[in-house]
Amino acid sequence: MLDKPRVIESGNLGPMDSALVPRYGGAATFALLPRLDEVERADIKVVGVPFDSGVSYRPGARFGPGHVRQSSRLLRPYNPATDTSPFAQVQVADAGDLAVNPFDLDEAIASIQVDALELTEDGARLLTIGGDHTIALPLLRAAAERAGGPVALLHFDAHLDTWDSYFGAAYTHGTPFRRAAEEGLLATEAACHVGTRGPLYGRKDLDDDARFGFGIVTSADVYRQGADAVAARLAERIGDRPLYVSVDIDVLDPAHAPGTGTPEAGGMSSRELLEILRGLRGANLVGADVVEVAPAYDHAELTGIAAAHVAYDLIGLLEES
Amino acid sequence: MLDKPRVIESGNLGPMDSALVPRYGGAATFALLPRLDEVERADIKVVGVPFDSGVSYRPGARFGPGHVRQSSRLLRPYNPATDTSPFAQVQVADAGDLAVNPFDLDEAIASIQVDALELTEDGARLLTIGGDHTIALPLLRAAAERAGGPVALLHFDAHLDTWDSYFGAAYTHGTPFRRAAEEGLLATEAACHVGTRGPLYGRKDLDDDARFGFGIVTSADVYRQGADAVAARLAERIGDRPLYVSVDIDVLDPAHAPGTGTPEAGGMSSRELLEILRGLRGANLVGADVVEVAPAYDHAELTGIAAAHVAYDLIGLLEES
Amino acid sequence: MLDKPRVIESGNLGPMDSALVPRYGGAATFALLPRLDEVERADIKVVGVPFDSGVSYRPGARFGPGHVRQSSRLLRPYNPATDTSPFAQVQVADAGDLAVNPFDLDEAIASIQVDALELTEDGARLLTIGGDHTIALPLLRAAAERAGGPVALLHFDAHLDTWDSYFGAAYTHGTPFRRAAEEGLLATEAACHVGTRGPLYGRKDLDDDARFGFGIVTSADVYRQGADAVAARLAERIGDRPLYVSVDIDVLDPAHAPGTGTPEAGGMSSRELLEILRGLRGANLVGADVVEVAPAYDHAELTGIAAAHVAYDLIGLLEES
Amino acid sequence: MLDKPRVIESGNLGPMDSALVPRYGGAATFALLPRLDEVERADIKVVGVPFDSGVSYRPGARFGPGHVRQSSRLLRPYNPATDTSPFAQVQVADAGDLAVNPFDLDEAIASIQVDALELTEDGARLLTIGGDHTIALPLLRAAAERAGGPVALLHFDAHLDTWDSYFGAAYTHGTPFRRAAEEGLLATEAACHVGTRGPLYGRKDLDDDARFGFGIVTSADVYRQGADAVAARLAERIGDRPLYVSVDIDVLDPAHAPGTGTPEAGGMSSRELLEILRGLRGANLVGADVVEVAPAYDHAELTGIAAAHVAYDLIGLLEES
Amino acid sequence: MLDKPRVIESGNLGPMDSALVPRYGGAATFALLPRLDEVERADIKVVGVPFDSGVSYRPGARFGPGHVRQSSRLLRPYNPATDTSPFAQVQVADAGDLAVNPFDLDEAIASIQVDALELTEDGARLLTIGGDHTIALPLLRAAAERAGGPVALLHFDAHLDTWDSYFGAAYTHGTPFRRAAEEGLLATEAACHVGTRGPLYGRKDLDDDARFGFGIVTSADVYRQGADAVAARLAERIGDRPLYVSVDIDVLDPAHAPGTGTPEAGGMSSRELLEILRGLRGANLVGADVVEVAPAYDHAELTGIAAAHVAYDLIGLLEES
Amino acid sequence: MLDKPRVIESGNLGPMDSALVPRYGGAATFALLPRLDEVERADIKVVGVPFDSGVSYRPGARFGPGHVRQSSRLLRPYNPATDTSPFAQVQVADAGDLAVNPFDLDEAIASIQVDALELTEDGARLLTIGGDHTIALPLLRAAAERAGGPVALLHFDAHLDTWDSYFGAAYTHGTPFRRAAEEGLLATEAACHVGTRGPLYGRKDLDDDARFGFGIVTSADVYRQGADAVAARLAERIGDRPLYVSVDIDVLDPAHAPGTGTPEAGGMSSRELLEILRGLRGANLVGADVVEVAPAYDHAELTGIAAAHVAYDLIGLLEES
Repeated sequence: MLDKPRVIESGNLGPMDSALVPRYGGAATFALLPRLDEVERADIKVVGVPFDSGVSYRPGARFGPGHVRQSSRLLRPYNPATDTSPFAQVQVADAGDLAVNPFDLDEAIASIQVDALELTEDGARLLTIGGDHTIALPLLRAAAERAGGPVALLHFDAHLDTWDSYFGAAYTHGTPFRRAAEEGLLATEAACHVGTRGPLYGRKDLDDDARFGFGIVTSADVYRQGADAVAARLAERIGDRPLYVSVDIDVLDPAHAPGTGTPEAGGMSSRELLEILRGLRGANLVGADVVEVAPAYDHAELTGIAAAHVAYDLIGLLEES
Repeated sequence: MLDKPRVIESGNLGPMDSALVPRYGGAATFALLPRLDEVERADIKVVGVPFDSGVSYRPGARFGPGHVRQSSRLLRPYNPATDTSPFAQVQVADAGDLAVNPFDLDEAIASIQVDALELTEDGARLLTIGGDHTIALPLLRAAAERAGGPVALLHFDAHLDTWDSYFGAAYTHGTPFRRAAEEGLLATEAACHVGTRGPLYGRKDLDDDARFGFGIVTSADVYRQGADAVAARLAERIGDRPLYVSVDIDVLDPAHAPGTGTPEAGGMSSRELLEILRGLRGANLVGADVVEVAPAYDHAELTGIAAAHVAYDLIGLLEES
Repeated sequence: MLDKPRVIESGNLGPMDSALVPRYGGAATFALLPRLDEVERADIKVVGVPFDSGVSYRPGARFGPGHVRQSSRLLRPYNPATDTSPFAQVQVADAGDLAVNPFDLDEAIASIQVDALELTEDGARLLTIGGDHTIALPLLRAAAERAGGPVALLHFDAHLDTWDSYFGAAYTHGTPFRRAAEEGLLATEAACHVGTRGPLYGRKDLDDDARFGFGIVTSADVYRQGADAVAARLAERIGDRPLYVSVDIDVLDPAHAPGTGTPEAGGMSSRELLEILRGLRGANLVGADVVEVAPAYDHAELTGIAAAHVAYDLIGLLEES
Repeated sequence: MLDKPRVIESGNLGPMDSALVPRYGGAATFALLPRLDEVERADIKVVGVPFDSGVSYRPGARFGPGHVRQSSRLLRPYNPATDTSPFAQVQVADAGDLAVNPFDLDEAIASIQVDALELTEDGARLLTIGGDHTIALPLLRAAAERAGGPVALLHFDAHLDTWDSYFGAAYTHGTPFRRAAEEGLLATEAACHVGTRGPLYGRKDLDDDARFGFGIVTSADVYRQGADAVAARLAERIGDRPLYVSVDIDVLDPAHAPGTGTPEAGGMSSRELLEILRGLRGANLVGADVVEVAPAYDHAELTGIAAAHVAYDLIGLLEES
Repeated sequence: MLDKPRVIESGNLGPMDSALVPRYGGAATFALLPRLDEVERADIKVVGVPFDSGVSYRPGARFGPGHVRQSSRLLRPYNPATDTSPFAQVQVADAGDLAVNPFDLDEAIASIQVDALELTEDGARLLTIGGDHTIALPLLRAAAERAGGPVALLHFDAHLDTWDSYFGAAYTHGTPFRRAAEEGLLATEAACHVGTRGPLYGRKDLDDDARFGFGIVTSADVYRQGADAVAARLAERIGDRPLYVSVDIDVLDPAHAPGTGTPEAGGMSSRELLEILRGLRGANLVGADVVEVAPAYDHAELTGIAAAHVAYDLIGLLEES
Repeated sequence: MLDKPRVIESGNLGPMDSALVPRYGGAATFALLPRLDEVERADIKVVGVPFDSGVSYRPGARFGPGHVRQSSRLLRPYNPATDTSPFAQVQVADAGDLAVNPFDLDEAIASIQVDALELTEDGARLLTIGGDHTIALPLLRAAAERAGGPVALLHFDAHLDTWDSYFGAAYTHGTPFRRAAEEGLLATEAACHVGTRGPLYGRKDLDDDARFGFGIVTSADVYRQGADAVAARLAERIGDRPLYVSVDIDVLDPAHAPGTGTPEAGGMSSRELLEILRGLRGANLVGADVVEVAPAYDHAELTGIAAAHVAYDLIGLLEES
């Protein structure tokens, strides 16, 4: 059987039909969805950015997109948590990876921005798989340009990522949201870090962050308040603004996501993260990313699987937006 | 010291005496209990079924029984969580592994059923270590025959396992509970999936499942309601019916059980699972299994240890039934 | 940069141009070659067979094709060992994976044969990545049919794979070459096992094997005689007959190939295997396979990389045949 | 840049300045703090005890100190959870490792005691990184001597560690707190095990433990009551007595701490443990240890990172005491 | 099928019949041979010594016996390298593990000696699986007693193991052969280290060793001279004296045996070691051991498999002696 | 015992005395040698360069220096292969790591050059541990400046590393020796690649390389000719010129060095590499490096141990030069 049958619903080309083709075979597009060149157009494009030249500690997120795709083979088309079939109502396709220069940070950031704009020229929205968190800046530039102005931001991460510079470098995986705020890409009154924890360089880190207007929901807050209350609080903060969601997989505890570059103990579980995302239904999502999956430190794909499920639920939010 | 001393309580031959023999030495029977041929009779028999020809994704559960036994070396005879010594009141013994044909699914299922009936001919009850979930069907056939009718079922799993077929095959690890329901083995009004999560093929999966009468307690329900409330709800549903408990180790989050074949993010913790099981005291347990431990994907035996503890608490429930 | 540039030589579409696109990004076709649907026709087709239902010990080779492709990302187009550019003189393309039923050995073998014949209908020759060794039988059936008669065979393996049956099953990964001999697919006077070692069930295993006419070059022979002498001896034996080469990666020592199902100590190194293959230049190769890569047991892709290099040199032999 | 710049606050020499020197380079002192010989005096000394000859199951904690230091590279100087900079108010330094005889348990225990007294002669307090739990006994002897009498004890562990002997040995990692109680080192009315779970040898284990006066907060208690309530309960019990805190990393679930010697399923998360520690602010901490990290069983340093964070928060408690 | 069928040849009870019972199931005795209590008497007894309290670096060899047995499941009864069926001519059985005190080196050594004498009282010879190399001393004491005088020794190891003491301890894994020489257990004119390499503490190490009369064949010698020449040279040295062979698995290169405690680069391959052993046929072997397998550092059982094959060939030598 | 005793010979401060301090404890300087600040001056300085921003595939060599130091703990002071005590005749010390900017390749290369010149200002020679191969260029600049002219080069590597550019970048880990040749740093008539293998981009790669004057000894040449003959050939080529030796650990087969960034099958063994180095005695070595150890892909430190042994033998050559 050489032709791979596909699930088709509402006229959209869905994943490979896994009742006929084993899920462990064939090329690993995200969730076994069609490639972008196999469909006429796509409403939601999954794109990988294999890039990690902005990392300050463990590198390896350049292998993240391929790893998350491999770990997404078990995703099926119907999400019982939301009672939706995200691939059925709109066309979702895998746009492959961007070709990004590993040796020149500036060129890399510029080319990601150009490519993101090109991919969204037809009105499509992006679910991006990193790569390190540096890539959130050009993605936010593109998202803000497409949204016609600043966007709300939910930033799931152990870290603030609003440092000013590191080794004299202004553009690294520790700075994208400061740069984004400075560039006016964010509706910072509706921007919030979620899941932060772990030591900082100094109280000034918090002060700077607050000065830009970011809110903070710590990992301990999630423990004390529960996912539903946190989601409600976040939903209220963002309102109906165009929203960008950026998920650094290190928002999860290292037990749930060992395969990442700057792990911190005391994080949330994958269940908490998924429940918070499900509590955001109704948001006006214009783009999202899942970043910082470093496969060399993963085990049995558990980080990849967590990232794949997060991406799947983000696609569900994009589909409903 | 060549003769291995044993703990003896209430006339029952217990585990190797680990104050005299290091727990890391000697053959790994479950919890270092005696082999079946070392005792005259056994009330509870621990039996392995090294079989994984029914898996749809990552194989390897054929090595599960040996791995769980190795990971059970640290189990000690007294359970403070229930204030009981499960190996003291009744005789528990390790019956070894069944010899199952890996190349013929039908023959395999038939031989497991025959062997399970033979092992329970003397009134003993089985705690089975898989192996993939295919084996639950012949085990349920034997359990229902011994119980003289349909049994209640608590099915801990990320998945429903009530699909109809896969690649044209009616008997795989995705179908045992549908087959069991069709064969009249289950008191489905007292059958419930616990811990499910993750995407399905379509809403029809849920509809089919409901049509057979299964209840569902999702992993998110456990998060929101807590283990005690869930246990109470389950206990009420099963009442005093003869009960079979089947635990697919993938009911745990991949962080707690990476060593399994079809992991899904967002699962419960091992503590939640153990607390739910402890909340079932008083149930009329007639048999139980722990399946889908695939050691090649485990790390530092953490999946094996979780499975061993689950099996230990299930033995405690069997002992009290 | 969204369009992936490709190396083009002598009119053939070659691998992605890795001076412009990082080798760690993009979909992993074998050696980053074009997919079969991207070229008009292909002289050599690389095809995966994700199937491991015929294994007798560690399963997992179903994930072999994807793993070997991932490990082939570093392969470049020019082979200095032979001073050839195997992708330039003929068109090589990646035909993806066959969809094979994991639950029915007979159907699986039949469908592989059908697919292999379909893929070679246009005169193309196959380099197949397994999958377990069961698949060599249908591949040999197709190769013999295309060759118009029995083929010579070089079988690199720790084992003979000429057992008669196992658990009553005639078609498993331990029997393909006995079945092939019985079916008249092999010119057994020109058939030889290379690299065997490790214990057998009895002397009868050797006697049976000899009765079918197979020759044997053990791993110890390779140690004593060296790769060049062994290659010369093999080349003489096969002459100019149409030749099929089947490489079970367990022919390598477990140090060089831990990621396999039935490893045996005392094997050859990857350098010895590659040198023997290079000593076969001039052979009339009509098809080849590399099988038994089980990624769950691999580390840092070292088995995958060895398999990828073996496949690369086999493609070179196919290209020159 | 050969000279390593350091953060200096309030006259204390702090960690290497990681804005100028990458955190992954240079020698791994704890949290990249100065070595003891680089400062004139230190208020808090971090000392390693590479010793594991007292273990009853998986050995390897002798490599614990180096591993935890390596995993502490990402710790930064400001703790937002407590709004303090623990390295700024007092001088903290890394005193290196004690040289402990691996072949003579008695000599080892004696030399640790001597060294601990020598290190605290100047009034410094110790944060010790083990090593197996045997070392808690000589550390408690030194702490009680420095405190001038029995100390309160919070003992975070899956196990009671109040067994009497094992293989006839009175001093092993299963007995330190019984010995400490017998020696009058503990204010047992203010001594408590936290996080216990898993089977015991018999009810007598609990009875013995209670007879010595220890309290118990099980892992299940933490699940039911939450970290804040548990911390409050503990704080009340210990009052303002001089307090020693001993953390066996196996108090965490194996998902959070696979790299340890006697793992038990059903443990607490690293977030729960950190929140309990933070709830102890105001306690009069005179010494602390983190033990039983066995790196050979760790993955991606997740156990090491959890231990490093625990040590960091314990230093914060020491600083405020 | 609950009764496990066994291969029976020449009246001896052989391994489980793996044509009927899968090799991955059932308890792992060595090579799936019968337990000692299942046979009336045994000519060769395989015994494990789970003990590692004598190690100076990475511990973990206490788990060696179980690991090697698990890795021996693929061993089959006929050895084509020697054209013999070692389990057919004599009765071989697995005697299980000795119970050795981990906390008292002297008691441990004494009890191993007692047990070894008891096991050989009936004329049986031992193939021992360690455990660390400390155990060679009591085993040599027993072997010399049974042989009625000093024995020849072939000692395969990266190290000399003739140090005098370490940390004041005279009996550790670095000293057994010095102690044995001092005690007159060795015919040192027929004692030889094979495979040594790596740095020493000083030239005195070599001088001391030579003074005791040991010969040395380094790993580099094996590279230059080849296995056959080395075997011939060794055979000549030992003559027809009663011979004890002790194999520290670290004689293999870390690539072939990562799972060990004190690895040194530049070692021999498993093929070289096996060929040397096969070149010793005709020797008068009275006992043998394979030690220092530390599973926590192994990968995919490759060290275990190498050790199992070495043990298998040693059994062949014992059988022919 | 808090003061660490040291071996002192010929007035030089040697490694920690491991008869008194366990080798697994204490800070990991190379071979447990003194830090540079502990000695008055040093003839040979071991320095780490934690930098990997020049890699084209798997990153992670930034963690190489720390990993190799950890793996060097077992190195002892006397080398029986050369009958020398390299730390006794001259003072060897560990100079720690250079602080290199990970975000700016040009600045990184410049600062390494400055630091290397500063470290050698007093006549010391460097043994550098990488880091990726980019660092060889600034190290060669410093070596040539210190040597007063071009130096001979032995470059052990799977790859030529004489590519021109990659992604437009002239300075990466694939280009250092082309740049060095262009800059006149090399006596190319005495420059040679050793151990190359694996595919290239095209024959032009070889032609370019030859045009610069490099010689090539492939991995296959080493197999056919043996280490001694290769070493003799190399020694003749370099004569008495000042020699720089650069060892990319990927010159070893992935079985011997899985922990590296661009592994290629068919490499040499660690024994062959060490024997070749030992055959270079008498060379006039002015500097050396060991690079491309990427610990995230290592297992049980086997790559680190191979690199440590290579560094140890290089220090021996430096000492004798």
